[in-house]
Amino acid sequence: MESDSKSATAGKVLRCKAAICRNPGEPLVIEDIEVDPPKAWEIRIKIICTTLCHTDITYWKMKTGLVAAFPRIFGHEAVGVVESVGEHVEEFIVGDTVLPVFLPNCNECRDCKSQKSNLCTKFQNNYPPNMPRDGTSRFRDMNGEILHHFLWVSSFTEYTVVDVTHAVKITPEIPADKACLLGCGVSTGIGAAWKVAEVEEGSTVAIFGLGPVGLAVAEGARQRGALKIIAVDLNPGKFDIGKKFGVTDFINPKTCGEKSVSEVIKELTDGGADYCFECIGLASLMQEAFLSSRKGWGKTVILGVEMHGSQLSLNPYEFLRGRSVIGTLFGGA
Amino acid sequence: MESDSKSATAGKVLRCKAAICRNPGEPLVIEDIEVDPPKAWEIRIKIICTTLCHTDITYWKMKTGLVAAFPRIFGHEAVGVVESVGEHVEEFIVGDTVLPVFLPNCNECRDCKSQKSNLCTKFQNNYPPNMPRDGTSRFRDMNGEILHHFLWVSSFTEYTVVDVTHAVKITPEIPADKACLLGCGVSTGIGAAWKVAEVEEGSTVAIFGLGPVGLAVAEGARQRGALKIIAVDLNPGKFDIGKKFGVTDFINPKTCGEKSVSEVIKELTDGGADYCFECIGLASLMQEAFLSSRKGWGKTVILGVEMHGSQLSLNPYEFLRGRSVIGTLFGGA
Repeated sequence: MESDSKSATAGKVLRCKAAICRNPGEPLVIEDIEVDPPKAWEIRIKIICTTLCHTDITYWKMKTGLVAAFPRIFGHEAVGVVESVGEHVEEFIVGDTVLPVFLPNCNECRDCKSQKSNLCTKFQNNYPPNMPRDGTSRFRDMNGEILHHFLWVSSFTEYTVVDVTHAVKITPEIPADKACLLGCGVSTGIGAAWKVAEVEEGSTVAIFGLGPVGLAVAEGARQRGALKIIAVDLNPGKFDIGKKFGVTDFINPKTCGEKSVSEVIKELTDGGADYCFECIGLASLMQEAFLSSRKGWGKTVILGVEMHGSQLSLNPYEFLRGRSVIGTLFGGA
Repeated sequence: MESDSKSATAGKVLRCKAAICRNPGEPLVIEDIEVDPPKAWEIRIKIICTTLCHTDITYWKMKTGLVAAFPRIFGHEAVGVVESVGEHVEEFIVGDTVLPVFLPNCNECRDCKSQKSNLCTKFQNNYPPNMPRDGTSRFRDMNGEILHHFLWVSSFTEYTVVDVTHAVKITPEIPADKACLLGCGVSTGIGAAWKVAEVEEGSTVAIFGLGPVGLAVAEGARQRGALKIIAVDLNPGKFDIGKKFGVTDFINPKTCGEKSVSEVIKELTDGGADYCFECIGLASLMQEAFLSSRKGWGKTVILGVEMHGSQLSLNPYEFLRGRSVIGTLFGGA
């Protein structure tokens, strides 16, 4: 058994290809890199499949602030196989299929033990986001320069190292190209509809932005029996895709004429949608979503990471009318 | 029985004293007024006891906008006895002790039938707020000038007329001076702690503003078994009163030194309060309350009516960390 759990490369520095971003907004360049072996409570993973999420792009553009760290290896939706494990790792063995996840789960703190929170307190992961326990990177380029990790995953590389709190074992029977979407977008959208908003049968839903997350929200709402699922997107071509995920009505803000999107939604829903989801990351759209929500119990769920760092400006009186706003990372999963 | 249900004054215009506000911010003047008999679905009430709520003052100062209507009779927390009833009134008879309430309950619309909303759709009561069914006033001064109602109650008069949807029958055994507080402040505060926030045993609570509403929030949180109830108020004398309602910690923003109130609350609660309540009506305090709430599940409840019409500016990223904001009128009652 002991020999089964060791790979030939265990404990050694690995050389492999990775897509590196040298500076904000610059094209990624495929280069050779070196990947250190995992330290204690870490696993090194061979990436099988990875996808591009809009959050990668948001951070790729960021020039300043603590979140901006370059050169860097992006990517946070992936499926991989464990190549080797560090000391004290008991949850994973070599050959396990795993889903790296950007939110940690220590199973120990008040948040991880609670059903209400998915934001681990033990590994709060302040920026810059290299390895969560010692803040160092496991990546170097061939000149010896440190390459930063991204969201504790960094999947645009053949091999990556993640902390055990940032990985979930999955069955290898799920096709990798579908499974890797569980790492962010799909879990975020379905989780937002089910766990955060608690969409119920017969309710009305408005979704701002029909990308992968918005489509997952639609699918989650459809499965919960929502009566009306209204999608708002500037690209009319998305309506046909949306229909497959339960979207019943489509609003293109460009063709609303003199009416605001919230006015159109209020007309379609007899006063406002029960649940509104912002899946883009624009404060102005969050405001429009809030105004589209129904008095009495209308709930606005923010899923998008605001791309320009703008503040969200809301009218307090609209809150007094029974509206609420809640945000979620990773759909509360 | 028929004779019992009629008073000598039924159907007649009544003359009585009332406190009239002629213009925004001007002192109230006691004058004789005429009160029309109740129309269909209305009751005329002899006021036994009335109190002054901060909301009266907020509206008393308002110079512009649809909410500003003068001359006017303020007051919306009161207890009275039914003097006469209009056509079709079946819920009340002459002599009933009643609590006029500013929020209507038609028992018919989707909101009134739902447990989730207390905002009647049938009687949405747009401004200016005279009688809800025909928009007219039942008050005139001795020169025949119309006097506007306030919040569908207007209790600073010996007699008032309210719609049946704006009154609740209560037992005359509750002392009137206590019962009339149920008409707004106490119900708002206790309802916010119980129904809106759903404060649970062992939780931490921060209350911004220790007036009657804030004290009622504290009492509601204490009854629910909150571990820590932190009050924030500029008047240190309120701490002793607060202790009687369960307040365990007191913060005077003037004596926080270089720290912000939210920083002090985060220290006292190991990361932020589970529930924060804004009971004043200042956008800046709502922001501070939001920042004082815990990541993961921190809930901010807005009870105060923003006094300056300011917008509430919040950082969307703080929402993504699992925080939420909800507002309530009348504690969801």
